[in-house]
Amino acid sequence: MPTQVEIWTDINCPFCYLGKARFEEALKAFPHRDDVQVVHKSFELDPTIAPDHTGPVVDHIAEKYGISTDQAAANERSIGEQAAELGLPYQISGRDFGNSFDMHRLLHFALEQGKQDQLLDALYAANFADDKPAFGDTARLADIAADAGLDKAAAEAVLADPTAYADAVRADEAEAAALGVNGVPFFVFDGKYAVSGAQPVPVFTRALETAYNDAPRPQLLVDQETDATCGPDGCALPEN
Amino acid sequence: MPTQVEIWTDINCPFCYLGKARFEEALKAFPHRDDVQVVHKSFELDPTIAPDHTGPVVDHIAEKYGISTDQAAANERSIGEQAAELGLPYQISGRDFGNSFDMHRLLHFALEQGKQDQLLDALYAANFADDKPAFGDTARLADIAADAGLDKAAAEAVLADPTAYADAVRADEAEAAALGVNGVPFFVFDGKYAVSGAQPVPVFTRALETAYNDAPRPQLLVDQETDATCGPDGCALPEN
Repeated sequence: MPTQVEIWTDINCPFCYLGKARFEEALKAFPHRDDVQVVHKSFELDPTIAPDHTGPVVDHIAEKYGISTDQAAANERSIGEQAAELGLPYQISGRDFGNSFDMHRLLHFALEQGKQDQLLDALYAANFADDKPAFGDTARLADIAADAGLDKAAAEAVLADPTAYADAVRADEAEAAALGVNGVPFFVFDGKYAVSGAQPVPVFTRALETAYNDAPRPQLLVDQETDATCGPDGCALPEN
Repeated sequence: MPTQVEIWTDINCPFCYLGKARFEEALKAFPHRDDVQVVHKSFELDPTIAPDHTGPVVDHIAEKYGISTDQAAANERSIGEQAAELGLPYQISGRDFGNSFDMHRLLHFALEQGKQDQLLDALYAANFADDKPAFGDTARLADIAADAGLDKAAAEAVLADPTAYADAVRADEAEAAALGVNGVPFFVFDGKYAVSGAQPVPVFTRALETAYNDAPRPQLLVDQETDATCGPDGCALPEN
């Protein structure tokens, strides 16, 4: 069985953007990378924010946490420096904070279409590398989906129906809550090992190795191995 | 993490056809069925058969195992009775035996497109329920793929390139060999529990329950839970 990696993430979360790059650096060098399957799962940093809200992150952070805009801006510069070390473009003064529920719905649609990773990269780029707001702009989200290789009309249909994939987003969030996750990124390997945060690359390497090497040999639940199987010697027919 | 079910199968294998129906009956009644992911994996009952070979199964079985055609035909009738109990159509005198490698390549393509289950059902129907030969007929395979919801031109391109998804088929077969599988269907649940053969429905129910209830809580590999995460209280910035 391939090693399964689940990554809870929010588009609003800069450490998710950085953590994805660090995880992928570890994965790229992992000898069994073709036996690893990655799925991204939904987490909203602020599910209470109005659906169409978007606005400069510095103002949002300053207001929400009662710090000065200077301090909030300094935080952004610090994250920008860490992004630069990874070669990731980062608008240290331009990004917005907004409601990401529609983006998560779209990521579930993209998962079905085999394009989730591409869409997440495109959403991160739109939010962190581009100074145009990406939240609350359905037309722009449809363009981003098309750029990620999705059918634009199908993406527009998903965006136009607020119930589409909404349960899938909430199910991911309920699962995160059940796991005690209250910050992202949060990585789970084969349901058995977890890494919280944008950890250094070697931590992800170790997690991949641990999960991969731990895969057990499956245990037969029923002993009748010859019952109703077909093999190189034909189909076993117990009653003949 | 969803419960992962891997099912090694061959289109030539009537017990795979029956086993899929029995597994699905168990799955349909399983309360956590939305948390179960199924993937079908490649196994060839006879990988040595010529690529374009097809022919009546009764003759093939009689010749291969040195039994009379009457006995081979009786075996088919016996399987047909078991199929009828499941409500599955079965041509007790009509099916062919052939090289299934191209079908397995197509199933890997369908997996990427989210249509693997539909294609497998269509291939089983073509082989077991329809009296037209399905093996060694590229044009018919493309039609079957289109009926299963795949893009016909894309399916034709896969069929025309013998290297397309060939490694994926061989990787599945190598994995089966490593697991000691020499007959199909073979079901593996979360890489931990296995069921061999078209077992009765309650065996699959028990396997689903066992795997689902056994899912452990992931263990954090690194303790620095507050390092480089974003949560409802903002993004942790260790250096500020």
